[in-house]
Amino acid sequence: MQSIAFIGLGNMGGGMAANQVKAGRTVRAFDLSDRALAKASDAGCMACSSAAEAVKGADAVITMLPAGKHVLSVYEHDILPMAAAGTLLVDCSTIDVDSARKAASLAQAAGKGFRTADAPVSGGTAAADGGTLAFMVGCDPTDFADVETALDPMSRVTIHAGDSGAGQAAKICNNMLLGISMIGTCEAFALAERLGLSAERFFEISSQSSGQNWSMTSYCPVEGVGPASPADRNFEGGFATDMMLKDLRLAKEAAMTSGAVTPMGGHAEALYAMLSEQGLGHKDFSSIIELLSKGTVK
Amino acid sequence: MQSIAFIGLGNMGGGMAANQVKAGRTVRAFDLSDRALAKASDAGCMACSSAAEAVKGADAVITMLPAGKHVLSVYEHDILPMAAAGTLLVDCSTIDVDSARKAASLAQAAGKGFRTADAPVSGGTAAADGGTLAFMVGCDPTDFADVETALDPMSRVTIHAGDSGAGQAAKICNNMLLGISMIGTCEAFALAERLGLSAERFFEISSQSSGQNWSMTSYCPVEGVGPASPADRNFEGGFATDMMLKDLRLAKEAAMTSGAVTPMGGHAEALYAMLSEQGLGHKDFSSIIELLSKGTVK
Amino acid sequence: MQSIAFIGLGNMGGGMAANQVKAGRTVRAFDLSDRALAKASDAGCMACSSAAEAVKGADAVITMLPAGKHVLSVYEHDILPMAAAGTLLVDCSTIDVDSARKAASLAQAAGKGFRTADAPVSGGTAAADGGTLAFMVGCDPTDFADVETALDPMSRVTIHAGDSGAGQAAKICNNMLLGISMIGTCEAFALAERLGLSAERFFEISSQSSGQNWSMTSYCPVEGVGPASPADRNFEGGFATDMMLKDLRLAKEAAMTSGAVTPMGGHAEALYAMLSEQGLGHKDFSSIIELLSKGTVK
Amino acid sequence: MQSIAFIGLGNMGGGMAANQVKAGRTVRAFDLSDRALAKASDAGCMACSSAAEAVKGADAVITMLPAGKHVLSVYEHDILPMAAAGTLLVDCSTIDVDSARKAASLAQAAGKGFRTADAPVSGGTAAADGGTLAFMVGCDPTDFADVETALDPMSRVTIHAGDSGAGQAAKICNNMLLGISMIGTCEAFALAERLGLSAERFFEISSQSSGQNWSMTSYCPVEGVGPASPADRNFEGGFATDMMLKDLRLAKEAAMTSGAVTPMGGHAEALYAMLSEQGLGHKDFSSIIELLSKGTVK
Repeated sequence: MQSIAFIGLGNMGGGMAANQVKAGRTVRAFDLSDRALAKASDAGCMACSSAAEAVKGADAVITMLPAGKHVLSVYEHDILPMAAAGTLLVDCSTIDVDSARKAASLAQAAGKGFRTADAPVSGGTAAADGGTLAFMVGCDPTDFADVETALDPMSRVTIHAGDSGAGQAAKICNNMLLGISMIGTCEAFALAERLGLSAERFFEISSQSSGQNWSMTSYCPVEGVGPASPADRNFEGGFATDMMLKDLRLAKEAAMTSGAVTPMGGHAEALYAMLSEQGLGHKDFSSIIELLSKGTVK
Repeated sequence: MQSIAFIGLGNMGGGMAANQVKAGRTVRAFDLSDRALAKASDAGCMACSSAAEAVKGADAVITMLPAGKHVLSVYEHDILPMAAAGTLLVDCSTIDVDSARKAASLAQAAGKGFRTADAPVSGGTAAADGGTLAFMVGCDPTDFADVETALDPMSRVTIHAGDSGAGQAAKICNNMLLGISMIGTCEAFALAERLGLSAERFFEISSQSSGQNWSMTSYCPVEGVGPASPADRNFEGGFATDMMLKDLRLAKEAAMTSGAVTPMGGHAEALYAMLSEQGLGHKDFSSIIELLSKGTVK
Repeated sequence: MQSIAFIGLGNMGGGMAANQVKAGRTVRAFDLSDRALAKASDAGCMACSSAAEAVKGADAVITMLPAGKHVLSVYEHDILPMAAAGTLLVDCSTIDVDSARKAASLAQAAGKGFRTADAPVSGGTAAADGGTLAFMVGCDPTDFADVETALDPMSRVTIHAGDSGAGQAAKICNNMLLGISMIGTCEAFALAERLGLSAERFFEISSQSSGQNWSMTSYCPVEGVGPASPADRNFEGGFATDMMLKDLRLAKEAAMTSGAVTPMGGHAEALYAMLSEQGLGHKDFSSIIELLSKGTVK
Repeated sequence: MQSIAFIGLGNMGGGMAANQVKAGRTVRAFDLSDRALAKASDAGCMACSSAAEAVKGADAVITMLPAGKHVLSVYEHDILPMAAAGTLLVDCSTIDVDSARKAASLAQAAGKGFRTADAPVSGGTAAADGGTLAFMVGCDPTDFADVETALDPMSRVTIHAGDSGAGQAAKICNNMLLGISMIGTCEAFALAERLGLSAERFFEISSQSSGQNWSMTSYCPVEGVGPASPADRNFEGGFATDMMLKDLRLAKEAAMTSGAVTPMGGHAEALYAMLSEQGLGHKDFSSIIELLSKGTVK
């Protein structure tokens, strides 16, 4: 797997492509933004004039795009017509499950023996730059070893979730649960404070009890409590509220389409939408505590 | 601390009092129910004819009662008038924070040098019988060592949460968070299933990711997934929905009284109330998955 | 407007087409179901072998289909290629706003001078059969008079909501509000009952106070209270929970796409989804009281 | 009914007492605030030095106080010991149902033949000043005529809701429904706007359809739409968010105590608590639209 086509060089994709270069691979890169393309070129990528141009001769095509419609469009018009037969197509975008499955079936229908995977990431720009992302992969089990190899320079861990679409499903189910747990954790700290129970003491107790969850023990939303987190730096950096909102909306859409009942997930979407409406969409998602207890975010 | 008065010998209190006996202490016991009193007597307690009688000559008085009004009533009419000056009064009931603080101030106002603690438990009847409960304690720091000694025969761990009322505050904040996390976990599994992602695979991924929480990793609501839990035995035993509902209502009441904002906590209360209304209040609280995905509870 | 093409002859469409016949118009009808087509033929429609066949020579084409994808497909493959230039195209389906606007722009792009309207209905099968539906119309103001003429035999009232898509927008905003109000009304009656306030007395007071709403005064969810409603006939007939759920999901989808914040609307969707999951999706939507106060629905 | 004792002369009580004076009655008034008492004196009331002093010789005692504990305290310490046997005691405060019933039973237990009523009001300070309040009354049916006479100078309409406590029950059930409907109405307008449907047109359609409710047709939360309302004057005046929040908390407390399931009512409480937390508690409760669509409140 020497030659990689990389389409989509934004905040995440740029760092990911650079890590492919560092691993000694040839990276044929494309983005609609000239600036993103120039930056990738500086990092050692070969700048291509179009997605169709980029995929020529590549062993694997990696895409990192904003939404399902972009993925489907570039698959239909550029990748499927121009990529060589048998190419491995790995979409790392976070998109809806239906579009992920449609991309896979379009690829199959092309009759060129393409192998496909949906492989959304967990981790932010720091992990993208550092090559320490986690990938949740939906693909045919026989293709998983090759997907792992393709993702290796960008990855801390790569997990096979199931068949086509299962990577996206795993990501949105996990992130819906994360959104719910984070709000629950913020509510518990806000209530503790009003009841005169200190945050430090509540953390000490609950992190060892049945309320324990990742949002509390690895990403505590209260300044000065638990390991370092965005709450310690005024909610800058981290995982933006608007990104969490995007994931919660993908989860809600998937729930409504599949007939799943997700009252708390829907409630989390509404609360993050309110936070974003108040102008805090760019802050870390743990700043939801601001809706509950005004004055935390300075 | 050789002589303990124990008032309230129900499902929890009975086992707790028995463990005091096993530790070699004299236990002066009382309960309004003759049957509970007889059972305590069989376990080696000295059955007393009233709460006022039970507290005579005791070094410490332990209460385990249903609600704040019962605690306040027995403090006012029996314990405070009849207990010896300087007695340690430990209330292990789960009650509202305001009543816990009122009990403490009534004791102080009695002018007999009483020392008080609120010490609600975490753990069910099995832990009560086995002497492995966790206690969250609100008391004056100088009294904590004595409280620990008093609770020792019944306890796996005893944590000092803060001053008077802090034990109750810690418990309801923790259990509110537990209720929210459990529902979120059930929703995530229900959505995963509808999206064709297996529960085993989702558990494997999310338990190592940002969705991790105690409800998933120590008490998984899906049969056959994770360590043994009530889901593996048709949601029998465990922590009943009606008990979770009681705690969520204490949390909601505390939030409204103190001006805390707890949208998810309130939502959890409503969902557990619906589950109880459907006749499932006696099942383990992880059976909330039944509201979301009918047919899970057989 | 003598010749009407009618595509989609289901529970609603069948009765609507029959009313066009009764008004003396020629109705060229098509449905994928032979049975529906035969029934329309019995009612005096001219059964056509395809949608493309039906639209030939029609002055107006009326569609009544389940979802946006069906409307877009029949527009693209049958109506736009085969209908005469200048034909009036009225879609009476309840579909998402985006699809409604896309249908209009496809029609415009066809370059044949088509005039289009989205005109979803309010009212059930009884109103469809009786010709007493309410239509909310999105169309160019200059076309509204013709749309009104086309709909006249099926209509009690026809309102112009705005440009293309505004009919669908009006319907989902109204029905989202209806879903919320209905649940709120059920909660108020359930609480009144538990507090010992009779339903009759609460109706008398609140219907004249600030709690008044259509769900209470025209469609009361309590048996024997207010004017006759589905609650008086065991929640049979009326507007099914699954239809309300469809509308609430269209509203939620529109909210997420447009960035609107609708916490109560989302909550209503979750509650109706739970009710449907419990097997009551076919009952009238006022049976949501069953989730709140078990035993109301027999 | 010539002599009235009036206890509690705040924003509401002051205007109410003045209307008793205007009706030619002798009003013996008391308030803890000297300023309120002086103002009542200016309006023609006889200022008394204590509640106990005020009730002497009165035919009826009217109370207008903040919460249940105040009512119970003044009943226990002042009114019941000092009022003449057979006096009519009418509490116009908005308090919890349990306290209302407790006040009635304390009065009965006094053994002096007191007749009691809970009679909370609907309407704000303007209605208090204008004598156009609505009263919802819980009392023995045989006492209702006298209650009506006592309230007459302050009342537009007086309705008998049932026995003791039923007045409070009617008020909180109605106001819970009002809070829910108002938020639903705001959401519908916010969604309509994002979908390009004008507020005027949506009002015109929905006010004649199944979404109709009092919040929309008599108190529209959008500036310039419907009859004049607080939205037309920057949400000043009207019914403050913090007052609505108080009522929603009384409703939630009553629901939890009585075992009623009120998911939407609980959600409304959480949303109003968030609005208050953002510093808008003094604005009219229709300003909840600000949480949904920032920038509406200037």
